[in-house]
Amino acid sequence: MAFTFSKPSEEYKLVVLVRNDLKMGKGKIAAQVAHAAVECALFAEKKNKKAFDAWHSSGQAKIVLRVDSMEELDEYRKIASSSGIHIAVITDAGRTQIAPGTTTCMGLGPAPVSELDKITGELKML
Amino acid sequence: MAFTFSKPSEEYKLVVLVRNDLKMGKGKIAAQVAHAAVECALFAEKKNKKAFDAWHSSGQAKIVLRVDSMEELDEYRKIASSSGIHIAVITDAGRTQIAPGTTTCMGLGPAPVSELDKITGELKML
Repeated sequence: MAFTFSKPSEEYKLVVLVRNDLKMGKGKIAAQVAHAAVECALFAEKKNKKAFDAWHSSGQAKIVLRVDSMEELDEYRKIASSSGIHIAVITDAGRTQIAPGTTTCMGLGPAPVSELDKITGELKML
Repeated sequence: MAFTFSKPSEEYKLVVLVRNDLKMGKGKIAAQVAHAAVECALFAEKKNKKAFDAWHSSGQAKIVLRVDSMEELDEYRKIASSSGIHIAVITDAGRTQIAPGTTTCMGLGPAPVSELDKITGELKML
């Protein structure tokens, strides 16, 4: 089965913040981001059908941004939590590259682009 | 919400083959792999509940492997298709880094580790 993904249709997106300070390899980063994206997608499908459908039918935008420390990730976690946006904090078992229990990334959404931009709009692409 | 992912519990896994020849950046790769993983997870949840549950309840292993050309990806696509394993071929709109319509990666599974290893067991981690 083939899927073509277009860019965000200015409506809903899913954002993943990745800890760049961990110096993970690109395959490791990809797997961690996939964990976050799958959790966010499955959660929305069950608990927030409106957001899921809006996101799923409009390109399923996934935006990968960088933070440079656990402290920075945690600040965004607190802000996102208080805004009501769904978050998925990913902690790795750490059998490769990093110590067990290390938080590697955090997914946010899917949520309206405008809401997410209020929180993560200043962050750079990974 | 926090999720801890452990490594494959020797049962089911989801594999993503990434085209290393495209020289995508790590954030771009992560988004493409997330596309594949989300498609495979949502498909299994709807169409192959047994595989989804086995995979979802046992660490949700996501393994990211490399191929070095479209031809190589296509060979694995043919083999996987004939084996009955679900595949998700991801084609990017190409507004950043790569040409529109470029196939970037392919998700396989979730499926039993032994079945996937018969197909992709020789490939290297990305």
